[in-house]
Amino acid sequence: MALLVSKTQSGREYKVKDLSLADFGRLEIDLAEVEMPGLISCRTEFGPTQPLAGAKITGSLHMTIQTAVLIETLTALGAQIRWCSCNIFSTQDHAAAAIARDSAAVFAWKGETLEEYWWCTEKALNWGPDGGPDLIIDDGGDATLLVHEGVKAEEEYERSGKVPDPNETDNVEFKVVLGIIRDGLVGDPRKYRRMKERLVGVSEETTTGVKRLYQMMTNGTLLFPAININDSVTKSKFDNLYGCRHSLPDGLMRATDVMIAGKIAVVCGYGDVGKGCAAALKRAGARVIVTEADPICALQALMEGIQVLTLEDVISEADIFVTATGNKNIIMVPHMKKMKNNAIVCNIGHFDNEIDMQGLEAYPGIKRVTIKPQTDRWIFPETQNGIIVLAEGRLINLGCATGHPSFVMSCSFTNQVIAQIELWKERNTGRYEKKVYVLPKHLDEKVAALHLEKLGAKLTKLTLAQAAYINVPAEGPYKPPTYRY
Amino acid sequence: MALLVSKTQSGREYKVKDLSLADFGRLEIDLAEVEMPGLISCRTEFGPTQPLAGAKITGSLHMTIQTAVLIETLTALGAQIRWCSCNIFSTQDHAAAAIARDSAAVFAWKGETLEEYWWCTEKALNWGPDGGPDLIIDDGGDATLLVHEGVKAEEEYERSGKVPDPNETDNVEFKVVLGIIRDGLVGDPRKYRRMKERLVGVSEETTTGVKRLYQMMTNGTLLFPAININDSVTKSKFDNLYGCRHSLPDGLMRATDVMIAGKIAVVCGYGDVGKGCAAALKRAGARVIVTEADPICALQALMEGIQVLTLEDVISEADIFVTATGNKNIIMVPHMKKMKNNAIVCNIGHFDNEIDMQGLEAYPGIKRVTIKPQTDRWIFPETQNGIIVLAEGRLINLGCATGHPSFVMSCSFTNQVIAQIELWKERNTGRYEKKVYVLPKHLDEKVAALHLEKLGAKLTKLTLAQAAYINVPAEGPYKPPTYRY
Amino acid sequence: MALLVSKTQSGREYKVKDLSLADFGRLEIDLAEVEMPGLISCRTEFGPTQPLAGAKITGSLHMTIQTAVLIETLTALGAQIRWCSCNIFSTQDHAAAAIARDSAAVFAWKGETLEEYWWCTEKALNWGPDGGPDLIIDDGGDATLLVHEGVKAEEEYERSGKVPDPNETDNVEFKVVLGIIRDGLVGDPRKYRRMKERLVGVSEETTTGVKRLYQMMTNGTLLFPAININDSVTKSKFDNLYGCRHSLPDGLMRATDVMIAGKIAVVCGYGDVGKGCAAALKRAGARVIVTEADPICALQALMEGIQVLTLEDVISEADIFVTATGNKNIIMVPHMKKMKNNAIVCNIGHFDNEIDMQGLEAYPGIKRVTIKPQTDRWIFPETQNGIIVLAEGRLINLGCATGHPSFVMSCSFTNQVIAQIELWKERNTGRYEKKVYVLPKHLDEKVAALHLEKLGAKLTKLTLAQAAYINVPAEGPYKPPTYRY
Amino acid sequence: MALLVSKTQSGREYKVKDLSLADFGRLEIDLAEVEMPGLISCRTEFGPTQPLAGAKITGSLHMTIQTAVLIETLTALGAQIRWCSCNIFSTQDHAAAAIARDSAAVFAWKGETLEEYWWCTEKALNWGPDGGPDLIIDDGGDATLLVHEGVKAEEEYERSGKVPDPNETDNVEFKVVLGIIRDGLVGDPRKYRRMKERLVGVSEETTTGVKRLYQMMTNGTLLFPAININDSVTKSKFDNLYGCRHSLPDGLMRATDVMIAGKIAVVCGYGDVGKGCAAALKRAGARVIVTEADPICALQALMEGIQVLTLEDVISEADIFVTATGNKNIIMVPHMKKMKNNAIVCNIGHFDNEIDMQGLEAYPGIKRVTIKPQTDRWIFPETQNGIIVLAEGRLINLGCATGHPSFVMSCSFTNQVIAQIELWKERNTGRYEKKVYVLPKHLDEKVAALHLEKLGAKLTKLTLAQAAYINVPAEGPYKPPTYRY
Repeated sequence: MALLVSKTQSGREYKVKDLSLADFGRLEIDLAEVEMPGLISCRTEFGPTQPLAGAKITGSLHMTIQTAVLIETLTALGAQIRWCSCNIFSTQDHAAAAIARDSAAVFAWKGETLEEYWWCTEKALNWGPDGGPDLIIDDGGDATLLVHEGVKAEEEYERSGKVPDPNETDNVEFKVVLGIIRDGLVGDPRKYRRMKERLVGVSEETTTGVKRLYQMMTNGTLLFPAININDSVTKSKFDNLYGCRHSLPDGLMRATDVMIAGKIAVVCGYGDVGKGCAAALKRAGARVIVTEADPICALQALMEGIQVLTLEDVISEADIFVTATGNKNIIMVPHMKKMKNNAIVCNIGHFDNEIDMQGLEAYPGIKRVTIKPQTDRWIFPETQNGIIVLAEGRLINLGCATGHPSFVMSCSFTNQVIAQIELWKERNTGRYEKKVYVLPKHLDEKVAALHLEKLGAKLTKLTLAQAAYINVPAEGPYKPPTYRY
Repeated sequence: MALLVSKTQSGREYKVKDLSLADFGRLEIDLAEVEMPGLISCRTEFGPTQPLAGAKITGSLHMTIQTAVLIETLTALGAQIRWCSCNIFSTQDHAAAAIARDSAAVFAWKGETLEEYWWCTEKALNWGPDGGPDLIIDDGGDATLLVHEGVKAEEEYERSGKVPDPNETDNVEFKVVLGIIRDGLVGDPRKYRRMKERLVGVSEETTTGVKRLYQMMTNGTLLFPAININDSVTKSKFDNLYGCRHSLPDGLMRATDVMIAGKIAVVCGYGDVGKGCAAALKRAGARVIVTEADPICALQALMEGIQVLTLEDVISEADIFVTATGNKNIIMVPHMKKMKNNAIVCNIGHFDNEIDMQGLEAYPGIKRVTIKPQTDRWIFPETQNGIIVLAEGRLINLGCATGHPSFVMSCSFTNQVIAQIELWKERNTGRYEKKVYVLPKHLDEKVAALHLEKLGAKLTKLTLAQAAYINVPAEGPYKPPTYRY
Repeated sequence: MALLVSKTQSGREYKVKDLSLADFGRLEIDLAEVEMPGLISCRTEFGPTQPLAGAKITGSLHMTIQTAVLIETLTALGAQIRWCSCNIFSTQDHAAAAIARDSAAVFAWKGETLEEYWWCTEKALNWGPDGGPDLIIDDGGDATLLVHEGVKAEEEYERSGKVPDPNETDNVEFKVVLGIIRDGLVGDPRKYRRMKERLVGVSEETTTGVKRLYQMMTNGTLLFPAININDSVTKSKFDNLYGCRHSLPDGLMRATDVMIAGKIAVVCGYGDVGKGCAAALKRAGARVIVTEADPICALQALMEGIQVLTLEDVISEADIFVTATGNKNIIMVPHMKKMKNNAIVCNIGHFDNEIDMQGLEAYPGIKRVTIKPQTDRWIFPETQNGIIVLAEGRLINLGCATGHPSFVMSCSFTNQVIAQIELWKERNTGRYEKKVYVLPKHLDEKVAALHLEKLGAKLTKLTLAQAAYINVPAEGPYKPPTYRY
Repeated sequence: MALLVSKTQSGREYKVKDLSLADFGRLEIDLAEVEMPGLISCRTEFGPTQPLAGAKITGSLHMTIQTAVLIETLTALGAQIRWCSCNIFSTQDHAAAAIARDSAAVFAWKGETLEEYWWCTEKALNWGPDGGPDLIIDDGGDATLLVHEGVKAEEEYERSGKVPDPNETDNVEFKVVLGIIRDGLVGDPRKYRRMKERLVGVSEETTTGVKRLYQMMTNGTLLFPAININDSVTKSKFDNLYGCRHSLPDGLMRATDVMIAGKIAVVCGYGDVGKGCAAALKRAGARVIVTEADPICALQALMEGIQVLTLEDVISEADIFVTATGNKNIIMVPHMKKMKNNAIVCNIGHFDNEIDMQGLEAYPGIKRVTIKPQTDRWIFPETQNGIIVLAEGRLINLGCATGHPSFVMSCSFTNQVIAQIELWKERNTGRYEKKVYVLPKHLDEKVAALHLEKLGAKLTKLTLAQAAYINVPAEGPYKPPTYRY
């Protein structure tokens, strides 16, 4: 298969499924803008001063309609953009088409192979001989990973002449990463180091990517500053919680049309994402059971009337299984073998290693029947029982539905815009070291404030006396950094 | 446009969108069977004795995957079937294809015109020179209506030579009905009377159709016995309530991807359907407001913390409007003009006259932008505000999603099967007059009982002493006919 | 112990705990009136015409603050009243005091013995030589029972000279009934027959009492007409459901202060009362499990995500047990022995025979520790585990709290007032035979309508065209009698 | 009025309402122990080593049944105790009696005057000539305040000979504080400084007290180390949230018996306490409206379907008002004048200055009718409308009910025990400076873990590979300190 880059009449590169979907994409982008007051406010407030002028931004983040509004907000603030998705199934092809035609270089389509996925990531990072990117917007850290692994390989190559060997890893996806670095290494053995030197910083979207960043910071291997968007309250307590509460049932319904009421649903992990999933399933009439390792989160589940058990306890009686741990190896083949016929198995954690898809594929005699894209029935030879695995173990809400709705993504993405402006503004001041930062509380509160009017809310204003009494500025921030909401 | 009937190799007639979708339909039918224990139990219990042997059944009921399982249950019991949908948007084309190929004559596709719709209905009723149908399965009463109007026209024609004149009615759809009767009348002026004479009865599925039947019974114009399925508890308190609780948000999400949390949602009507809709929206995080004419239903809404206002009170602040009254002229053009930009308007009542679509289409200067099929933005010229109307005012859950999930439809359809068996068994006994009947309580309880095991429930058995104490048989029925559940 | 009747200065009889509580009672009655718009509307609407003038009414219904407002509504309409409670624990002594002092003859206090209870019932029925009552307001049917048993005994005595023998029954309470009849029989062998002849009818409040009435109607033993208030929608779907949803947790909290969140709660019976209890416990954060004999009600529980099991399945793991079946012998001693230490056991069904209190008391070696009135810990000798039984197995919400709140009782009691007016108005017309009747739908709707304004609701008015379309009068009733709400 | 200290036979001091309530208190303490697994585990784990041997602890914390279990856990670990309540209405007299008789010096009764309250606080702090306390357990910071103000006054007196003048402050309560310090100052001008010198530290329970401590730390005036218990997750996200969710409706019901369903309820403040209150009211069927100054909390309310408005917007239509801001001057007299007749006004924030009780009392012509203790109707002369103020503006859940249930208090109090052990263990190591500390995460998780078994939960164990993957120890702590739960 040849992966060929197309160009628009203006010469901008892209590779998308079908550019003719651009009109449809544009219509939905128009609708989404009405639902994304934070981003539109950014255009109004910051547009005139063009705070991102000159910035070349690479984004690796689900190429959806909502992301299109983010991209066009960044371009409205002066940035140039190259974009790819951070998940093989999460692109909405009409969104990609509209952006490719109208606004930015895009390399993304729904249903990429792993090779295609990393090809797209490389294309989004590769700004050509003039260099770039200046900034990365990352979701899960794959663009950041590629730069870091690329630099590592280049340094090793310079040192020892050794190129990466994909056979040295068992991890199917990491083989592809090493391959793509190897293939470009000899031709341009400084590419990733040029990126690293230019890079002002990254703003990272999600729990999993943030975890990677903190590990690199701890190990001293982080190559550029990072702003942790995920831990803005208006991100992790909104997108993760309310977003999943919306999009998990959406994905389940679109993929399977199954009646949730009356069913037994197991949610693995009761963090923000798991809380959203459990709430959605409970409200839809399921009996929810949670698995947890953390006793505090477990006790929270119990206080909501949700039973806390181990996966083994319920494996053969539950109807729906959702992984939301951010950890790996949660639902393994021996679990899946014990499930009821037509049990539904899906993942809403960032990576697809919560469900042992490799083990399932390798199971002797297993039969895969694709009901429709992203909905597969895997039939075990011994029992002829099938289990229904959604989105091949990847994010169900993006693989089987359209991800989170615009309004909540407006909160998350407004944090992104603010972080990008901040990094770019301070690019020469040394304010940000090679560390991981969170946005200050008053910006977090500002993001929330931008979303209130759309919902008809009216805030109470503190009097000066009241503000003094609780020892906060009258205009906020209203809470200490440790406040948990 | 020519409407041509195709034939399978075995000679069975059909007209569907695309027969090649049959394999996909079959896969989903297989999944649905696991979720429809009531229908599968009917096959097991009644299959051997073939209680519908010899019966020619015409069905006018949304041609979905769930209906496919119903149809194949009826054929498994010996019936012959001709089928059409009872809504222009409700057909799932892969379901229609699978049934057409494998099991029954089908005339249905998603997105029929009104002319096509009534052509399909006529085809489903027309069993050719040997006559038929013997039985009707109706949902909304359109098949029953066509027979009654046909008989009326034939009698008038015989009496006066006058044929129906579509221009005599303002109702767009009724024009089509009169047209189709007129077109066949001279060629065969006894067709509908032959049907009437042969017809053993109809079992009717929904509130609206039932209302029509009781009116005809009261007026003395009902031509054959009818069993009211809708008022089985296991229908109206399940399908209408829990079904809509599932499928309303499903339709909203698929059509608009809008975040429901934080929005103001107005539900017009707080009957079983409205209760399901209001519960779903509330649980999704909307602030729900109900409009009601009935003080008892209004007080029920209040007891759930739901505000009860008139449409006028909230017309310009709400984000989502859902009609669920079973009445007409609920949301009119003057209402729509006052709505916020991008307010969402949809209907989940049986007929499309709850929203004034005709008025909207006729509004001078209005602009319709189709975002995607069944999702239209109507822009008023004065304000340039658009409202988003779903499924052209028809049933949102069937137009924009896939209708109710299999499990709850299994309850409804098991009632249908039982009613059809009953009508057919008593066809020569005179037990059923030209009246409307409900199924006896013990059958209602049986339908419920058939669905418990799938959900892992265990019933308590009354002792004889306990049964005597509350004056019921130990094996049921457990409640008086007036019990409200 | 001598039971002595006191008299007010005006000569009205009473026996209450402490007349000095009357001021406190009056303050709470004043508050309750604001919450009981239906009753206050009755005073406004009917007061001027005194429709109950001349009527002597005996009431046997929990002597609470809410009942006080009912009594004073009846007297405001012209009636004379004698009253007793229908449960040994349900009297609020300050309410009884206020009524005794200000408005009517009352015989009721919290914590009656069975002997005292039936003495009160007799006193409430006994209008002296001038005869009476003309009407009964009953809750559970005890006043009606006493008249029927009295008549039976008088007829037997006249026939055979035989007086009732309390030893002929094992039922502890029925022994007392027979004793009280026996004691008066020889002195006045026509008392109950005089009552019967004068009695215009009874209006009955609750499921259990209604069941008795229908049995008597079926057996042909009903001595006077009865209006079934319980099956007014505005009674059974409000008082039973929303009332218990309020008062069950209220009773649990006052009696035990136990944290409901996190606990496993078993609700036996998922009728209107059970639905209210299950909803309350679930919302308070308990994991609720329901036991049911009726498959339809069981399926309703499942649709709300509530597990349905048998009592045996969960007996040793649950923390809270609530009986709400209206049946008998639900929680027996062998069940109680298997419960966890400090499991809470209570009943919210009308009669106290849902829990085997007699068996518990008779258990060899059992130890009863009264924590406070109506909260007892029963310790089994084998395990030294105790179970906490509330209100001695009688209605927890009245025994351990103050019963249902005023607003919902206003709905129930407005039905009572309307029924009493109706019976009295038709006393000479023969309209009501010795049968059980329900109130017509339009009165039911009127009761609801009287309660809307207080909650700020606005009803939608049907146009004539809309009313015609759904075939109802524009001013209602809006639903057929079979509608289930 | 003379305030006299009594002594037990063993010579321990106390002043309580009625020592004869001790048996009743003991019965309820026995029940509570079963519900407080964290405290009982502390006795088992730490009892043998007596880690609090030699420690004199003064507690200023609601003297309830749950606190009794805390006190007896501390004494089981070797401590000596003197105790007072931190609220004039929060003492449960039977709990105080049992502790006074059996375990510790107690100065507390329900319904203290302000003078009595501070007399009790002084008595609890005053360990006599041998000195003490070594440690303080504080809830709201009153014991800490008295020491700090005492020291300040002593220093001023030493410097200038000036004694505190209660007339220098407008604050009614602070007048009493100054008075009590003044009265003892000349007789013993070093008392509070001796305390200060001996004090090892304080562990503080609640938001308000913690705020004071941080202010003193910032100002450099904090006299001894403090551990902030409130910000343990197992405190603020449990006690504040789930505790109030339980005890707010409990208080409302006991005080007013009002039906919550159907009502409009305003919750001022949507922090942890406000979230619990709003959830409880919503689940009880109220329509809830929140007032908030913080845009993030406001957006959280909206995501749950709760309207956010200002108090002024809803003042004349709401039925129930609850303050939960932790701020002051929330509901003022002009607000109260506009409320509906019989609107209910209550506070669940720590201090009573959220509602302007002083303004209400001073209002010309106002009439106060005490329905029952802690339930007053205040009637405005202009309108004759009354509003019902609960617990005189103090904590409704403790004034009108019994506070939070045992289980959730077990979480909070286990934190207290752990903090006291920690402070005492490190008393000579200099580990804790005059700053405010929180407990480390692993202790927080331990508190949760101690409460899981009682609720039947089973935790999942991370494999070493999983723990490494998410970069946590397999045995926890599982989350970074910033995690919000």
